[in-house]
Amino acid sequence: MKLLIINGPNLNLLGVREKSIYGTESFKSYYEQLKQDFANIDLTYFQSNVEGELINSLHEHGFNYDGIIINAGAYTHTSVAIRDAIAGIQTPVVEVHISNTLTREDFRHKSIIGPVCKGCIMGFGLESYRLAIQSFVN
Amino acid sequence: MKLLIINGPNLNLLGVREKSIYGTESFKSYYEQLKQDFANIDLTYFQSNVEGELINSLHEHGFNYDGIIINAGAYTHTSVAIRDAIAGIQTPVVEVHISNTLTREDFRHKSIIGPVCKGCIMGFGLESYRLAIQSFVN
Amino acid sequence: MKLLIINGPNLNLLGVREKSIYGTESFKSYYEQLKQDFANIDLTYFQSNVEGELINSLHEHGFNYDGIIINAGAYTHTSVAIRDAIAGIQTPVVEVHISNTLTREDFRHKSIIGPVCKGCIMGFGLESYRLAIQSFVN
Amino acid sequence: MKLLIINGPNLNLLGVREKSIYGTESFKSYYEQLKQDFANIDLTYFQSNVEGELINSLHEHGFNYDGIIINAGAYTHTSVAIRDAIAGIQTPVVEVHISNTLTREDFRHKSIIGPVCKGCIMGFGLESYRLAIQSFVN
Amino acid sequence: MKLLIINGPNLNLLGVREKSIYGTESFKSYYEQLKQDFANIDLTYFQSNVEGELINSLHEHGFNYDGIIINAGAYTHTSVAIRDAIAGIQTPVVEVHISNTLTREDFRHKSIIGPVCKGCIMGFGLESYRLAIQSFVN
Amino acid sequence: MKLLIINGPNLNLLGVREKSIYGTESFKSYYEQLKQDFANIDLTYFQSNVEGELINSLHEHGFNYDGIIINAGAYTHTSVAIRDAIAGIQTPVVEVHISNTLTREDFRHKSIIGPVCKGCIMGFGLESYRLAIQSFVN
Amino acid sequence: MKLLIINGPNLNLLGVREKSIYGTESFKSYYEQLKQDFANIDLTYFQSNVEGELINSLHEHGFNYDGIIINAGAYTHTSVAIRDAIAGIQTPVVEVHISNTLTREDFRHKSIIGPVCKGCIMGFGLESYRLAIQSFVN
Amino acid sequence: MKLLIINGPNLNLLGVREKSIYGTESFKSYYEQLKQDFANIDLTYFQSNVEGELINSLHEHGFNYDGIIINAGAYTHTSVAIRDAIAGIQTPVVEVHISNTLTREDFRHKSIIGPVCKGCIMGFGLESYRLAIQSFVN
Amino acid sequence: MKLLIINGPNLNLLGVREKSIYGTESFKSYYEQLKQDFANIDLTYFQSNVEGELINSLHEHGFNYDGIIINAGAYTHTSVAIRDAIAGIQTPVVEVHISNTLTREDFRHKSIIGPVCKGCIMGFGLESYRLAIQSFVN
Amino acid sequence: MKLLIINGPNLNLLGVREKSIYGTESFKSYYEQLKQDFANIDLTYFQSNVEGELINSLHEHGFNYDGIIINAGAYTHTSVAIRDAIAGIQTPVVEVHISNTLTREDFRHKSIIGPVCKGCIMGFGLESYRLAIQSFVN
Amino acid sequence: MKLLIINGPNLNLLGVREKSIYGTESFKSYYEQLKQDFANIDLTYFQSNVEGELINSLHEHGFNYDGIIINAGAYTHTSVAIRDAIAGIQTPVVEVHISNTLTREDFRHKSIIGPVCKGCIMGFGLESYRLAIQSFVN
Amino acid sequence: MKLLIINGPNLNLLGVREKSIYGTESFKSYYEQLKQDFANIDLTYFQSNVEGELINSLHEHGFNYDGIIINAGAYTHTSVAIRDAIAGIQTPVVEVHISNTLTREDFRHKSIIGPVCKGCIMGFGLESYRLAIQSFVN
Repeated sequence: MKLLIINGPNLNLLGVREKSIYGTESFKSYYEQLKQDFANIDLTYFQSNVEGELINSLHEHGFNYDGIIINAGAYTHTSVAIRDAIAGIQTPVVEVHISNTLTREDFRHKSIIGPVCKGCIMGFGLESYRLAIQSFVN
Repeated sequence: MKLLIINGPNLNLLGVREKSIYGTESFKSYYEQLKQDFANIDLTYFQSNVEGELINSLHEHGFNYDGIIINAGAYTHTSVAIRDAIAGIQTPVVEVHISNTLTREDFRHKSIIGPVCKGCIMGFGLESYRLAIQSFVN
Repeated sequence: MKLLIINGPNLNLLGVREKSIYGTESFKSYYEQLKQDFANIDLTYFQSNVEGELINSLHEHGFNYDGIIINAGAYTHTSVAIRDAIAGIQTPVVEVHISNTLTREDFRHKSIIGPVCKGCIMGFGLESYRLAIQSFVN
Repeated sequence: MKLLIINGPNLNLLGVREKSIYGTESFKSYYEQLKQDFANIDLTYFQSNVEGELINSLHEHGFNYDGIIINAGAYTHTSVAIRDAIAGIQTPVVEVHISNTLTREDFRHKSIIGPVCKGCIMGFGLESYRLAIQSFVN
Repeated sequence: MKLLIINGPNLNLLGVREKSIYGTESFKSYYEQLKQDFANIDLTYFQSNVEGELINSLHEHGFNYDGIIINAGAYTHTSVAIRDAIAGIQTPVVEVHISNTLTREDFRHKSIIGPVCKGCIMGFGLESYRLAIQSFVN
Repeated sequence: MKLLIINGPNLNLLGVREKSIYGTESFKSYYEQLKQDFANIDLTYFQSNVEGELINSLHEHGFNYDGIIINAGAYTHTSVAIRDAIAGIQTPVVEVHISNTLTREDFRHKSIIGPVCKGCIMGFGLESYRLAIQSFVN
Repeated sequence: MKLLIINGPNLNLLGVREKSIYGTESFKSYYEQLKQDFANIDLTYFQSNVEGELINSLHEHGFNYDGIIINAGAYTHTSVAIRDAIAGIQTPVVEVHISNTLTREDFRHKSIIGPVCKGCIMGFGLESYRLAIQSFVN
Repeated sequence: MKLLIINGPNLNLLGVREKSIYGTESFKSYYEQLKQDFANIDLTYFQSNVEGELINSLHEHGFNYDGIIINAGAYTHTSVAIRDAIAGIQTPVVEVHISNTLTREDFRHKSIIGPVCKGCIMGFGLESYRLAIQSFVN
Repeated sequence: MKLLIINGPNLNLLGVREKSIYGTESFKSYYEQLKQDFANIDLTYFQSNVEGELINSLHEHGFNYDGIIINAGAYTHTSVAIRDAIAGIQTPVVEVHISNTLTREDFRHKSIIGPVCKGCIMGFGLESYRLAIQSFVN
Repeated sequence: MKLLIINGPNLNLLGVREKSIYGTESFKSYYEQLKQDFANIDLTYFQSNVEGELINSLHEHGFNYDGIIINAGAYTHTSVAIRDAIAGIQTPVVEVHISNTLTREDFRHKSIIGPVCKGCIMGFGLESYRLAIQSFVN
Repeated sequence: MKLLIINGPNLNLLGVREKSIYGTESFKSYYEQLKQDFANIDLTYFQSNVEGELINSLHEHGFNYDGIIINAGAYTHTSVAIRDAIAGIQTPVVEVHISNTLTREDFRHKSIIGPVCKGCIMGFGLESYRLAIQSFVN
Repeated sequence: MKLLIINGPNLNLLGVREKSIYGTESFKSYYEQLKQDFANIDLTYFQSNVEGELINSLHEHGFNYDGIIINAGAYTHTSVAIRDAIAGIQTPVVEVHISNTLTREDFRHKSIIGPVCKGCIMGFGLESYRLAIQSFVN
């Protein structure tokens, strides 16, 4: 099974930025752990701060992967273009968030990409990603 | 580990009602499967169509269970009282939904109980419940 | 033909409450008249102030009656749960109101249950119920 | 008893237009049937696509008829002028709709003429007109 | 000086309709009085319930009269077409209302034609028309 | 003088729930104190988490008590049905709140039951109830 | 007949401020003209930039004058207190504006004091005041 | 190929009205040019200021023409009735506007008829009509 | 104990203005009664129609009084400046209203000063002031 | 004549994505056809999923081309930056859309770039581009 | 160069009020420092809690000073009258705020006076005033 | 002291684009002047039309510079991602705008990045940048 994890803007700062919200672990070390824990899954990771490059990545893998896990960061709330990219590909996409976005500012309560995703998992810290992988394994 | 699963209004019709959205399996048979799959977890199940009885259940178990998984059904979108009950207890609560509520009517896009829950898992059919249990196990 | 009439909250006060709006006749005596006038119809009546019990009644009769006539009272304007119950059963449901709700407060102008009902009859006083029965007879 | 039935814009296309919503029977043949079924009622019928002509008709008959049944079509949702005409006459007016307007586009959910009508009957197909006549007979 | 008075829908009912708001005097008798009081002014009067005929009248006189006084009735609040007609002609137009529309329903608080009129006079009963004539005389 | 105190959902948790907002005293012990302080008043107390049972209580006592003091908790902001019950009875009802609801979330700023209550007292902790009793004594 | 003219904030700048909107004539010289033209009327004039002083003036003259003409300037759109003052006195008040406020910024389209005034005259330049006096004379 | 061009209210003033927006050429002379340029197309032209007459025209030609080009003028933004007429006929309808309505007042930004038209061409002056014809020719 | 009572705009008209809402007793005579009833409290009274003078009074007494009771009248709904004054002083402030503001116009439903007051008492007529004093005595 | 066609995000998927909306022809083959059909026009084509690169392209060609045809895809509804780019260049820009955006989700009804474009052509499938070229040729 | 600094309501409490937002330095001592630092500028200072007096000050100096620096405090968000005063004078006005108002309550995010000021400087504590002076010096 | 100036989309067109708003001087030549005027400050300049590259620049310099001055151009009003980047770095950021954005279109009145910036300076033309530098120097 081939799964792609896409992280959107500012998630490269994980472990650095607003630690009270995102914790202190960097995504890289967490990702290494995930690869060990799901040894029989072919995991790929992509991060970019550029909206259009996230779209490019969705196009590139969206017709030959078994699943995509996306944390679109701030673009979750603003990007119709990423939504269209998800709707335009064939691979099912699961939306994840580290924090429970409903406990944050109002403008983070609305997910523009949500209606074209298969489902959403949020609020479990980095473990949200693990649950998303488990949703494909199940 | 003691976990409580609470189902809100109309979820007793599962397998009967709007099959295109909720599927044809009844929750009872699915619940038996969950109990087998998580044999070392002490699972309890409660369903009611009465808002106040859901609150009573949260009060009863909300100080001595390790986790609560709630699908509040339609009350998700209207009940400040259930929100207050969740905020008033000590046990962490995870919100689940069978369907991706963002693909349905506008009034289902807003979760009133969401901001006081630990996290949310939705869109994976009945498997949303399993992932919620896994979130406590993890 | 089996028809169920469901009355929601405060309609037990009919003839007592706000007489300028609801008139002075109690529903009970009116119901007896209806039973006489439609002697060949199997009429059942249920009233409750508890939202969940209205749902229970819809579930109980919603798969074996020929029609349901509901005046959900205040829940008309707030209850997504009753709406889901109506959508989840097989029996067609007709919404009735004693007064023309459009002449009252703004929050009574919107019916949440309306979109899942077959039709609506309102503004004819208690005679709204009779017209609803006639709609099934026709 | 003298009753006037007024049909607003596009209802002359009945049986031709959007058959999935309005059915295939033309209003003319249905009206003939109504006249037979209510032989002792003096029925008059008027249809126009011009808002002002509907007002003229309301003025003409609104002081000497016993009842008016109006399906204002699209003007239901836009015409303050027809509302004022109904409020300005003495004959009681019943609003009817063939379909349940709450199941259609949002802009059809609001009736501007509703608050000045005696009541509303909708969702019963052409039978909505018959029920409206019955409301006057009752 | 040539002045045109245009009355919109339902104002032909003046003296008949909702007397608590519009009084009991018909416009015709009042108009005769105005003609006597302003004997040196060439007064013309036009009334229609048809929006498009009001537009036709504006077109017909809007390039050769010295002033137009319009009470567009309900079309005041809904007609972009009359607004465009007023904006498209050369004669200055004064908006009048018999009642103070701000004391009535919310939807009567907004005048769509107001921004293209020279000014507005309202709330003085039929005397609003006299003041409008005086505004041209002054 | 016969007074009824009604507490709505979650107020049975008083002294347990969100102590920073509601304090640590349970309502029961406070109520005993009130009974001592107003020895010549016939005080009755009712609490329920079920909306419909609060309505039942209002119906039961709303025609034979001298006053009702209600803290409808979360239903304050959502229940048209309780509002209708208050409007339908004869006993005057005073709304109380322990905290100043205007300092909390936006959705707690609007009281649906407020317009049919005699008055409102809020923000004085449990002493709000005492002031409400004093309002009847005065 | 005793009439009071009240001018609100910034109207002391008339003839100085934004000449394209208000013209170049100062109110003082215009007022002298009015006094000559209506020699048999007892005219009083008051201007202040202080909201409370406008209220004081309304209180002082609002029980012994025959009419008040108010141009509340910017307070037209913001002052509930002046509205209450007008509602609280006995003398009828006519609202005037020099410009047609509907042609200016959106926030000038709404008059808070309008619903408690007898009527409104606007858009005729300083002549709006003259028409207001004529409305009392008529 | 039979094509109908329908022009709505005030478009008979073209060349006269608001020349900065609509230019100085009258539609009549432009239409003669179009007929020459598309000699092999059977062109018909209809203009009215009456909403209902536009509907009548759509009904008359909407089942036997190959295409309709409509500039509904102000009714574009207010007429649900014309929308229903377009939806009720069989001939495809193309919406045109002389100016780019998005550069004008906010209330002109929304087209009520747009969702039932095949497409829209606007902003090219009178040439918008030519492009619409070309869309049928293509 | 030193308490200050502040009354805002138009409350000097009490007993004169809109008697159906405010009653016929003047505040002065009521205030004398209060001083007698609470003989051991040092009561001060201030009234002004000028928003800034209310602020000055809050500043003057807000650091050396034990409590302030404010009925800000119309400024309740519009004055951020009074809100800031209350937030900036040290003395706790209780908001009072004679009528239940929720039964009046919509714009009176929102209290801008409420969120910075200790609590609110409204709807008890002049007795609202007495209850506010009792809240400090308790 | 030099014309530039700019396609925004996801339009590289044309012929692959949501075929029910966009059809099955790829843009590349269609573009080759256009170049043949308008042999005397110097056509250039640019596509990118990156908002900023679309801006770069507008800057690069926006001072030396005769016309630009843009289908900004999802950025149509979100990009103020592209709007500013169009407003900042000298070449006239025509907005095109393959589908009639008014028949799709609400958030696609508003074009942010529309008000700074010369005009708009939408709903004609790929032929929208051809009509846009014709608009420059005409 | 003659510059006027105007401080609005509650700014006389600076150093006393809500120190976490405004700091502990009083404006008076800061102002003395400014006078020393800009010895060659003729600085004047005015503070009032009365909206109308701020307008008076703007009128008095607004035709003979080189610049005005205004911190209108709470009136920033409510006063159309101060806005009109600024628009009506000739001296350019710079808006300053001590805190970044965007980090505070929603109702402080909108500046009513902003659109008629030359510019705005906010968020730099008392140094915002210094930067405003520098803007005139530059 | 190390300061970074970031310019967002279309600001590379400065001196070319909409000269009535932005003036005719290019930013490059102005920047050279700034470097001379603040010779002892280590100034860096970055401009991009790509949202993600602005984020990259904030990440790169946001932990080792003393201050950042950002004019995010159109992204000011749309980019949650840039807001998150500013919130995630340690260097204080000052928002600047050349024009007073409150005098332009409504959608430019809201700054999404404002709440996470230290302060804002706008409306002084290019001199806004100089004042921002001075805010760090002060």
